Amino acid sequence: MQRYQQAQLFSLIQKIFLKAGCSPENSTTVANMLIAAEMRGIPSHGLMRIKDYIGLWQKGRMNMQPNVQVVHETPSTATVDGDLAPGMVAGKFAMELAMQKAAQVGSGWVAVRNSNHFGIAGFYTMMAAEKDMIGFAMTNANSLVAPTFSLDRMLGTNPIAFTIPGKEEPAFTADFATTPIARGKLELMEKQGKQSPQGFVQDADGNSTTDPSVLKRGGAILPLGGDFEHASHKGYCLGAMVDILSAVLSGANFGPFVPPQVAYLDPKPGAPGAGLGHFFGAIRIDGFRPVDEVKEYMDLWIRTFRQSKTSIGNDHVIIPGEPELARTKEYEQDGVPVLPHVWQELVATAVSLGMNENELFS
Amino acid sequence: MQRYQQAQLFSLIQKIFLKAGCSPENSTTVANMLIAAEMRGIPSHGLMRIKDYIGLWQKGRMNMQPNVQVVHETPSTATVDGDLAPGMVAGKFAMELAMQKAAQVGSGWVAVRNSNHFGIAGFYTMMAAEKDMIGFAMTNANSLVAPTFSLDRMLGTNPIAFTIPGKEEPAFTADFATTPIARGKLELMEKQGKQSPQGFVQDADGNSTTDPSVLKRGGAILPLGGDFEHASHKGYCLGAMVDILSAVLSGANFGPFVPPQVAYLDPKPGAPGAGLGHFFGAIRIDGFRPVDEVKEYMDLWIRTFRQSKTSIGNDHVIIPGEPELARTKEYEQDGVPVLPHVWQELVATAVSLGMNENELFS
Repeated sequence: MQRYQQAQLFSLIQKIFLKAGCSPENSTTVANMLIAAEMRGIPSHGLMRIKDYIGLWQKGRMNMQPNVQVVHETPSTATVDGDLAPGMVAGKFAMELAMQKAAQVGSGWVAVRNSNHFGIAGFYTMMAAEKDMIGFAMTNANSLVAPTFSLDRMLGTNPIAFTIPGKEEPAFTADFATTPIARGKLELMEKQGKQSPQGFVQDADGNSTTDPSVLKRGGAILPLGGDFEHASHKGYCLGAMVDILSAVLSGANFGPFVPPQVAYLDPKPGAPGAGLGHFFGAIRIDGFRPVDEVKEYMDLWIRTFRQSKTSIGNDHVIIPGEPELARTKEYEQDGVPVLPHVWQELVATAVSLGMNENELFS
Repeated sequence: MQRYQQAQLFSLIQKIFLKAGCSPENSTTVANMLIAAEMRGIPSHGLMRIKDYIGLWQKGRMNMQPNVQVVHETPSTATVDGDLAPGMVAGKFAMELAMQKAAQVGSGWVAVRNSNHFGIAGFYTMMAAEKDMIGFAMTNANSLVAPTFSLDRMLGTNPIAFTIPGKEEPAFTADFATTPIARGKLELMEKQGKQSPQGFVQDADGNSTTDPSVLKRGGAILPLGGDFEHASHKGYCLGAMVDILSAVLSGANFGPFVPPQVAYLDPKPGAPGAGLGHFFGAIRIDGFRPVDEVKEYMDLWIRTFRQSKTSIGNDHVIIPGEPELARTKEYEQDGVPVLPHVWQELVATAVSLGMNENELFS
């Protein structure tokens, strides 16, 4: 696979969003977050999304010159209206607001409506960790998931991210969908002619199946846990909590009404809310004990868990965030691998906006 | 099974804790919470715990006359030292503090150290909902759970609870362990000679097994998800997040060092923290939009989900909190069923404290 330098990709993405009318600041924000996804080994939230974002903009469903603003607040809470911005632009605004509030009164919690796909949730929580805060980020998403006992797709894969800094150890960063699998991985299984494990998807009648293509025929992804016997109701509770915090508080669309983040799928008619929703939180760790006490104790936590005994054939107990950090270090040195078709789509998107091939890498 | 009236059980519990030296106020708090667990159909956190609490007190590991106090705070955060109180006493103090802070600045977040088993997490979050707040509650617990790839029991079943009020609909209340199963249910399977489903437990070598008694021979409960293929690393992340918020922020013991909540198991030597830890949060819903807008939208959320299509053989999509509310209504009318051996233990505990049989129901 061809590898590209981070700076080269950054420059290309920035130019594309400038061409689409983004301000220099906002195009930098979008480029930073898409690159961060690639650098952490999550390409499903990186370059391959650009085509979709541009498509949404061309259909008037994404606003490249948004007026993102606070519409309601208390000293430690707020609702932000994203004005249909790229999710990263609304998200960064909201996370920074949460951090400002935390700096002032100990914690800050910001719900966002009228937004779009915001990239990787872990980006926002890592912003907080740099300021000695715990970060929380979550978002709702296009509905693909059936609650326990349901045949309907009522929830998205609704991720939760959480970061707490250590002192000498790198920050603990968990960033995970509230389902056993993401849609992208099902598509990959289908292309490779593989069956999915039990407990990932159900068919249109609610039967367990291992056919990864079943979403095309009315099937649904299952919540974390899989089936009721394996406590899928807990995964359903988690996905529902993310949906409620992201949409009910802010007034965004919830569950089945969340607008799809691809131009070829139309939003559901009669949607009751505004765009897609997120929820961000920041808590100062010195709101509980002196900073160094908490960070040193977090180091002890990490080292204790890392040193626990492991099963044969497995390296060591993984501390959330470690694999992504290792990927980042590798890509900083060797460049970011990009699939040929993703690269071709990216160039085609740039050309469709009126850029010529020389301009791409100038 | 014999049924008892709520008031009768309440009076008996209160007398037991008064005999053990609790103040009238604290014995009322403990009795209220243990009864609430029974009324919601969670007897594992009700009457059967009393013997353990009294045993911990007799070993000097629970303090029935605690000085629960705030040791660090900002306008929206605090750490509370529970002084080894019954967890309900420290927990109620901390949740009320979180709600006071929310009333003042929009949200409140309180970490607790030096505490004990706190009953059902959902009790605290429902306190918040009565004041038009969202409630969050979590606690760490005696380690029984192996992180993904680990052979060691590093985490408890670490529950998370979340409540948001509706307007006409009852509050949405999720309260769940971050594992597919609780220890009590494994013990029940063992007594009934049943095998457990795949994905609940592993043996001492990390092999998947269906033997529900395997915890006695070095086995462990698995995180929500089951195995790595089914995303147990997400359950591990959740359990770890609960442990970190409950213990690292407050200075309580974390993971493998959490003191067992039964008198016959000794705490691990060299434990680095103070007692067991909890984490509570309260957010005013009018910190985001006017109260009625949020509550009416929450009603719409609940009704939309309840009306989704269901699979054959299943009643309807369950809204978290509904089954517990139905149980409460039933028990209010018909009394609370209590297992004969639980009742006998309760009477024996009362008698061991010097109460005579006449005094039990006077």
